[in-house]
Amino acid sequence: MALKKAGVLGATGSVGQRFILLLAEHPDFELSVLGASPRSAGKKYKDAAHWKQTDLLPESAKDIVVVECKAEAFADCDIVFSGLDANYAGPIEKEFVEAGLAVVSNAKNYRREPTVPLIVPIVNTDHLEVIEKKVAAAKAEGKPKPGFIICISNCSTAGLVAPLKPLVDAFGPIDALTATTLQAISGAGFSPGVPGMDVLDNIIPYISGEEDKLEWESKKILGKINKEGTEFAPLSDDEMKVSAQCNRVAVIDGHTECISFRFANRPAPSVEQVKKALAEYVCDAYKLGCHSAPKQTIHVLEQQDRPQPRLDRNRDNGYGVSVGRVREDAVLDFKMVVLSHNTIIGAAGAGVLIAEILKAKNVI
Amino acid sequence: MALKKAGVLGATGSVGQRFILLLAEHPDFELSVLGASPRSAGKKYKDAAHWKQTDLLPESAKDIVVVECKAEAFADCDIVFSGLDANYAGPIEKEFVEAGLAVVSNAKNYRREPTVPLIVPIVNTDHLEVIEKKVAAAKAEGKPKPGFIICISNCSTAGLVAPLKPLVDAFGPIDALTATTLQAISGAGFSPGVPGMDVLDNIIPYISGEEDKLEWESKKILGKINKEGTEFAPLSDDEMKVSAQCNRVAVIDGHTECISFRFANRPAPSVEQVKKALAEYVCDAYKLGCHSAPKQTIHVLEQQDRPQPRLDRNRDNGYGVSVGRVREDAVLDFKMVVLSHNTIIGAAGAGVLIAEILKAKNVI
Amino acid sequence: MALKKAGVLGATGSVGQRFILLLAEHPDFELSVLGASPRSAGKKYKDAAHWKQTDLLPESAKDIVVVECKAEAFADCDIVFSGLDANYAGPIEKEFVEAGLAVVSNAKNYRREPTVPLIVPIVNTDHLEVIEKKVAAAKAEGKPKPGFIICISNCSTAGLVAPLKPLVDAFGPIDALTATTLQAISGAGFSPGVPGMDVLDNIIPYISGEEDKLEWESKKILGKINKEGTEFAPLSDDEMKVSAQCNRVAVIDGHTECISFRFANRPAPSVEQVKKALAEYVCDAYKLGCHSAPKQTIHVLEQQDRPQPRLDRNRDNGYGVSVGRVREDAVLDFKMVVLSHNTIIGAAGAGVLIAEILKAKNVI
Amino acid sequence: MALKKAGVLGATGSVGQRFILLLAEHPDFELSVLGASPRSAGKKYKDAAHWKQTDLLPESAKDIVVVECKAEAFADCDIVFSGLDANYAGPIEKEFVEAGLAVVSNAKNYRREPTVPLIVPIVNTDHLEVIEKKVAAAKAEGKPKPGFIICISNCSTAGLVAPLKPLVDAFGPIDALTATTLQAISGAGFSPGVPGMDVLDNIIPYISGEEDKLEWESKKILGKINKEGTEFAPLSDDEMKVSAQCNRVAVIDGHTECISFRFANRPAPSVEQVKKALAEYVCDAYKLGCHSAPKQTIHVLEQQDRPQPRLDRNRDNGYGVSVGRVREDAVLDFKMVVLSHNTIIGAAGAGVLIAEILKAKNVI
Repeated sequence: MALKKAGVLGATGSVGQRFILLLAEHPDFELSVLGASPRSAGKKYKDAAHWKQTDLLPESAKDIVVVECKAEAFADCDIVFSGLDANYAGPIEKEFVEAGLAVVSNAKNYRREPTVPLIVPIVNTDHLEVIEKKVAAAKAEGKPKPGFIICISNCSTAGLVAPLKPLVDAFGPIDALTATTLQAISGAGFSPGVPGMDVLDNIIPYISGEEDKLEWESKKILGKINKEGTEFAPLSDDEMKVSAQCNRVAVIDGHTECISFRFANRPAPSVEQVKKALAEYVCDAYKLGCHSAPKQTIHVLEQQDRPQPRLDRNRDNGYGVSVGRVREDAVLDFKMVVLSHNTIIGAAGAGVLIAEILKAKNVI
Repeated sequence: MALKKAGVLGATGSVGQRFILLLAEHPDFELSVLGASPRSAGKKYKDAAHWKQTDLLPESAKDIVVVECKAEAFADCDIVFSGLDANYAGPIEKEFVEAGLAVVSNAKNYRREPTVPLIVPIVNTDHLEVIEKKVAAAKAEGKPKPGFIICISNCSTAGLVAPLKPLVDAFGPIDALTATTLQAISGAGFSPGVPGMDVLDNIIPYISGEEDKLEWESKKILGKINKEGTEFAPLSDDEMKVSAQCNRVAVIDGHTECISFRFANRPAPSVEQVKKALAEYVCDAYKLGCHSAPKQTIHVLEQQDRPQPRLDRNRDNGYGVSVGRVREDAVLDFKMVVLSHNTIIGAAGAGVLIAEILKAKNVI
Repeated sequence: MALKKAGVLGATGSVGQRFILLLAEHPDFELSVLGASPRSAGKKYKDAAHWKQTDLLPESAKDIVVVECKAEAFADCDIVFSGLDANYAGPIEKEFVEAGLAVVSNAKNYRREPTVPLIVPIVNTDHLEVIEKKVAAAKAEGKPKPGFIICISNCSTAGLVAPLKPLVDAFGPIDALTATTLQAISGAGFSPGVPGMDVLDNIIPYISGEEDKLEWESKKILGKINKEGTEFAPLSDDEMKVSAQCNRVAVIDGHTECISFRFANRPAPSVEQVKKALAEYVCDAYKLGCHSAPKQTIHVLEQQDRPQPRLDRNRDNGYGVSVGRVREDAVLDFKMVVLSHNTIIGAAGAGVLIAEILKAKNVI
Repeated sequence: MALKKAGVLGATGSVGQRFILLLAEHPDFELSVLGASPRSAGKKYKDAAHWKQTDLLPESAKDIVVVECKAEAFADCDIVFSGLDANYAGPIEKEFVEAGLAVVSNAKNYRREPTVPLIVPIVNTDHLEVIEKKVAAAKAEGKPKPGFIICISNCSTAGLVAPLKPLVDAFGPIDALTATTLQAISGAGFSPGVPGMDVLDNIIPYISGEEDKLEWESKKILGKINKEGTEFAPLSDDEMKVSAQCNRVAVIDGHTECISFRFANRPAPSVEQVKKALAEYVCDAYKLGCHSAPKQTIHVLEQQDRPQPRLDRNRDNGYGVSVGRVREDAVLDFKMVVLSHNTIIGAAGAGVLIAEILKAKNVI
């Protein structure tokens, strides 16, 4: 089958570099257009990017000449991945959507738009229905394919909601949730990202905007679509109380989250029932046969000292989430430790899997 | 005034070394007897100990000949500090108490004994009343001074209860409390302590026995003495629900705890009232004029990214506790970040301050 | 082609676990017998090993029942890999060789035996000639295949000699060499390995026995075979002066070595000639078509801040060595930075590649 | 005695903050004027500085109103410490000197000026003679006190030359020297300084300009003054060949340097003679009674795994240098490990000690 043409916005940045790594030898996509700042435009990618990944810069990307982030240069792209910094993403992504392009963005700018799906691809693929309908309607009316944007969630939100989804499916709503995160530094990029003086022999008990994202985005992702199928209706603060405390720790990749939660329904399930629901969960992306979808969505670990970021973050190439220490909680119902790979399921990797789902559903 | 003679049990170990550092130039105490394993006995301390502190081995300790941990060798000690490993502390400390010695122990063995005070010296010095009464009674009866043991709390418990005490004093009972800890590695000692492979680019989401200690000890420390003044009555699980999640992180010294809690009384105080109560708290040890007592017991930090272990752990020489990010919590009433120095207020340092209090109260 | 049957000695240890990972899906070998201490014998491998690798325990190894390290249990093995601790390796490996088995060992015990090849498989495969001759002679005489042992070099030695070999080949002997190493902690294993207190915010400027190994082993590996083809003749201290200073640093995998060296011949080559010789070097293992052999043996990096362990250690799956900052030296001729993956080309990985070479040469 | 008035240039930066900490309760100096960028000028220091030290901001500095770095505002200062970034230091320091001020600078700008002393205060205080003469001459001529600048050396240079000085004094010239450094990150400041992604599980084998500084500055510091007493005559490349390889490692404070060196004279001294010369060395600053001068200039450690930065960097408050593993070297004469505190004897601390010496010598 013909490969879908992929563009990358913010291609020289930290998220952009990971998009390029994931797309370089992808069975569904081919790297087609790379966009970056005017400073980089006109240069070969290998000269424009300060490549700082553990894998070598893929041959297929080296000689692509970087362009500015203007929609016309991406007109042939079936899908555009945005790794743009939030300071730039707003107007650029808007222009791309208005030009009829399909955009999957890691930026936070449009996550709270009522009509924009906020997707964790192992969790709420049903939210893509809003886009599917829009595309189908245009087709039915003989109009050209409409542009749209789909937002990737915040990284720590992805790890949080992954195990919550099967639990809510199985046991009904969660009405209270606390999460204390121990977050890796890779999510902050590398120029300069988190200063070394902050991470050596230290903890930073604050990440700008993160707690609010965790608290808000989880309500949209676990929320519903309106009856018309056009807008999202996040859970209210009453339906699910969420409290987050976010810390930056000396870990390269992998967010650890110590969470506790309470179900709305009584009696609550047993620990064994909770573990079973987690272990048996199969995400839609896997059922759709998507290339990057995890074979095992949630890995339930029984060793008392797991999950650990260095040992467990790469399960299913970073698309699987690990859960350990599931046990009863004296204040709410249960507590457990969740580990997810922040740059895979929490950022660029999620974007690529979302695009795989769109392809599987013939949306692109 | 004559210095009190101090003995140290487990003198070559990690806690013992810190006792020696704190006592070496202390205005109240002089190092008198150092006890260790039979393997070390008979050697000069400088030859017996594998010294691994950032300060040099004090001159006054170098040539003390180490003895075995037998009570008779410590008969002249006014106070004995125990840094013994829990595997050995039980019978040895018992022998010392039965021999009429005053013991302050860092081991966990007797913490849950109903008649043994479990003391955080900036929190519950009133619990020493049980010992004071016992000593006074013996004196009144013309009997020899009775032996006794006072337990130092677990390190993460000390940090947790320090800010809770002034809040309970001011606003009444706390009925629910969650704590997620990010604990330094120094508490685990150094032979071998936490393996390097566990701490580099990693988190260990489990510390053996720690969560149970945090949950149980906090109830004893914030609890009452019975009417007879002879036994302790910890809070019940109904009076205060406590849930802990403990993690080991790549920090040398300083335990960070992300806590949230709810007061039993309604309406709850305001954030400003909470901060004020914390900032105005003056621990008894300071009022008593104890040498090591912190001038400021609780440091309330306003910068949003503090406290940080590397920057804030040494406030008041490690006897002060730092609290930051005090804010409302969507699930309970408040959440905040607490930082305490695990080897000072959470271990050997607490022992020395307890002894200073005993001296100030003429118990020793 | 039929897979060669592989045994692993010390299978539950850190090196043994890596042998199992590398062999589990290997095109040349199948895991056949796993040997460990009597304590582990009789258990399934998944129950005997405390698995601490970043990859999951391979399915094919899980249910193999561990045996004691006795030669008779390994009689069917075409090759036996030894990850035994040096405290046990001596007599066990001897017994295996005497029983006619082919042993590739990571232990140091027999490295200095004059008749035992000490092999870095991207460097001195010609040294295997001693074994080839022995095997051929037995065959010619109609005798059974003789047992033999081949030693894997010390980890930091492997990284050191890799770039020296092509330089000596091209420009003649090196007569003086200094190496300061910054070594990863994974080489020290994990029970307990390097204590966390030693690696956080710290350097340990000493690794027991390491400097002597680096200085001695490099002379054997770069040395010759005697005329009879039976024994090794290491370079003398006069032929090549080597001085090493070894440090343990806070890195998980990957040894960095800052080296400087002088050629015996005048005039010395130019920097460009040195780089060219390094870049063009193709190791014999690659020419032989070995599965794990690096496509690019030496990666010559031009960026001034490379190689870096986190970014560069996995070149060619850890079998390639990276060299950067090649430049003239004010004291000797040249200086440069060498990075090699200590658990791959410096330990278990080298053992597997040596076995691949033996198979390619029909020695096993 | 009246305190000398001290000014600080670049007061809000990382070096400036350390000057303030060291001067705040100093027996010789009082903080008088704090200069920073126009952005900070007019604010109280506590509002202008983003304080990131482990000690609290001294009370005496909090309310000083920051001024711009213009000489007139510093006219009353007896001494001005410059922590200015090299991008700004050139013209500002020049202006100050021309205005008749005494400047001690941490910036690199004037280090190579033939008339400017480059001082490591535990090494080459005799180089201050050039300034003393100049000041004395002006006095003799009845002229106003002349302005001057004294440069603090590069941090890794300070550690290197400290043990070399007593050796050269005792055994004559060193004609060849190699140094591989493992440098702490604090020297790079904190906004942003070394990125966390560069230091976790990693080494950066390059520090911009550092090797050249180490190689050049050591020759000036160990060099002579010309006959007229007006200019410095660094050692030539022939007199002392120096080769440096500089690495950034995951250490907060404390530069470790693995060095090897050869004496010009034969026979070379013995290891014991080298150790003795190091241990017996008493720096001039101590003889002058300077407050911060180390009681023990060089600590010779006998344990084979020392010095270690975390354990040994604070000897004599960071003004003492530790040397360990002194042993013979196969290529040059000796090798050893040197540890020095980069922000004390390698930066701000050196500046303060230089000023103490100037005061002791009545130059200020």
